[in-house]
This record gives sequence, structure tokens and C-alpha cells, in this order.
Amino acid sequence: MELLKQRILKSGHVSSDNVLKVDSFLNHQLDIALLSEIGKEFHRIFASDNITKILTVEASGIAIASMAGMYFNVPVVFAKKNQSKNIEGDVFSSSVQSFTHGRKYDIIVSKKFLSPDDRILILDDFLARGNAMLGLIDIVEQSGAKLCGAGIVIEKGFQDGADLLKKKNVNLHSLAIIKSMENGKLVFG
Amino acid sequence: MELLKQRILKSGHVSSDNVLKVDSFLNHQLDIALLSEIGKEFHRIFASDNITKILTVEASGIAIASMAGMYFNVPVVFAKKNQSKNIEGDVFSSSVQSFTHGRKYDIIVSKKFLSPDDRILILDDFLARGNAMLGLIDIVEQSGAKLCGAGIVIEKGFQDGADLLKKKNVNLHSLAIIKSMENGKLVFG
Repeated sequence: MELLKQRILKSGHVSSDNVLKVDSFLNHQLDIALLSEIGKEFHRIFASDNITKILTVEASGIAIASMAGMYFNVPVVFAKKNQSKNIEGDVFSSSVQSFTHGRKYDIIVSKKFLSPDDRILILDDFLARGNAMLGLIDIVEQSGAKLCGAGIVIEKGFQDGADLLKKKNVNLHSLAIIKSMENGKLVFG
Repeated sequence: MELLKQRILKSGHVSSDNVLKVDSFLNHQLDIALLSEIGKEFHRIFASDNITKILTVEASGIAIASMAGMYFNVPVVFAKKNQSKNIEGDVFSSSVQSFTHGRKYDIIVSKKFLSPDDRILILDDFLARGNAMLGLIDIVEQSGAKLCGAGIVIEKGFQDGADLLKKKNVNLHSLAIIKSMENGKLVFG
């Protein structure tokens, strides 16, 4: 997605500890017009999959999934990262190792919101090692719903998340794939 | 907002521990068409305030703020609840007591995204005791930006958050005000 790549080049930057920062438009401040275009692009890619529900994980997936939800005209469900008093009853849960935050956490989705009749599209902002995505896929599998695809805004192509997902035959589409970012220089794949 | 009240009556319910559950459309599963109408309504209310940025807090404020951001055509900034490695540099921060989760936490916003030139609308899903809102207002005040208003989807009118905000002269608009929910029966104000 050319608009996205141009924006990453313009507004993203690679920090000294080799983390790509896109907090000015994607995961802290949100450029809503860009996110709307991203949602439209995901719809173009997955329009023929008869998606009934979009699944993401809090927090930075929510805006992307919501914008896409408008084009698909389906509900969005976001997995929660911590058990909350305000979710009652039975939940699907999966354990995720976060390398960004250096800890393990559970993601949970109420069983009310995923059923074997659902055709699920998972959306998220980043794919690196793929741990959050594997947790979401685990939850979809527990529910018996059909996983129709996974859409990623920025894939770190030099990490192994995409390979892991392709081995599981996930229909993965990333809007921007970063092949390398050595010495702060971004190269798209 | 009649559409919202009808939806709360239809799909919300009061649990045994007197918590209003709206997780089927507002804060776990998201009814995007309804959220879009909510965003439109906030724009109708605050259209003349020349808002330059919408501020909310993760996680359940993000979808609401994003939908509103489309109508206002301005960026959204969401405060983060935990220090993350992916936010660098100086931040505004404020401490919030959560009664829902029974703990204290910090909310933070990168200083890059709020400036004295900004005219801020704060949006959130719930107002009860007002602690999250007071934290967001504190951050706006630290930044020197102008707080033009606060929009709430569901206000618990029987708790003191709204009074606290009105004493601070906050231009507060709630789309649905619940006057009481004793014995599971919802009464709007």
C-alpha cells in the first residue's frame, strides 16, 4: 500500500534500540484519514471472504479494526489483555509472550462473541514474531469459527512471524513489509 | 441520544454486582454502525468548537474517538495506561484510581502530541466517579492546550463524576444518562 509506505518513510523512524516508531500516526496518535484508507484496503483484499466478524487485540488494533469494520459492515471484537470485572461468564483465552514489553500476558474473548458460524478476519497493527497473532488464532480455533484471513498494517519481514503463519496456512496480507531497517534505514520488501 | 438509549435497554443489562454490561456493542464487541452514529452525534454537539484533536484513553475509548475523528476530521490521541517501550521521550502523565479494576494506574501521553495551540475534545465510553476523565483533564492542563469539551457515551448520573466536572466548568455532554439502575431496572435521566 503505497500511501502507507510513504507515510512510514515520512513520519516513522527507527530508534537507537532498533524499534520502528510510528506513534505519530498508527499507535498513539492516530491519523484517522489514513486508518480509513487502511480499512478500505483490507476490505478490497478480503471482500470476497464473506467475513462476519473482525477480531483484534487491544489497544492499538482497535482503531484499525473499527475503520475496517465500517467497510465490511460487520462487528469488531477486541480481545482484552487482562481479566476485567466487566467481562462476565465464560471466555476463550490464550497466553501471549510479548517481546516488546518483556512479559507474558493472557488475552481473552467472551464466548458470547465468537461462534462456529462466524467467518473471522484478524487485523492488527504489527507482525513481528507473531505471538499476539498466534494467540488470536488459538482463540478463533477454540471457538470453532472459520479463520478466513489475517491483515497486518506493518510486517517486520526480517522476523519469523509471517513464516510461522504461512506454515499454518493462514491467508496473510500485510500492507507494508519491512525487509530491513539496519542503521535506521528502512527497506521495504 | 434515543438510538443509544434504545440499544442500552435492548442489549445492556445490570449484573448481580450492580455493574451495567454493554460488552455486546460498546466495549468488547463493537457495533461499528452504532459507534459511527455516536461519533456523528458528538460532532453535532461540538461542531462549533473548532476542535483540533480528540483525546481518549485506551482501550474502550479508542473506537468511539476514532469514529468521531472521522466526522471532525482531526487526529485522535489515546492515553496509554502503562509505560511502553514504544513511547519515547517526554510524556505528560497523571495517576488514576480505577474502582472497576480496584487499582491505581498511570495514564501517559507523549508531549509531542499535545501543544498549547490545540483545542481538545475528550471522549470516553463511561463516566462514573470521573477518575479517568480527571486524569485526562490533568494531562490537557499540563500541555497548555485548551479543553473545549468532554463527551461521554454513558454517564452514571447517580455517581458524582458529572458534578465534579461541572464544578471544574468542563463543557460536559453525555449521550445517555442513567439516573438509577436499582434491582436491575434502568431509568434514564
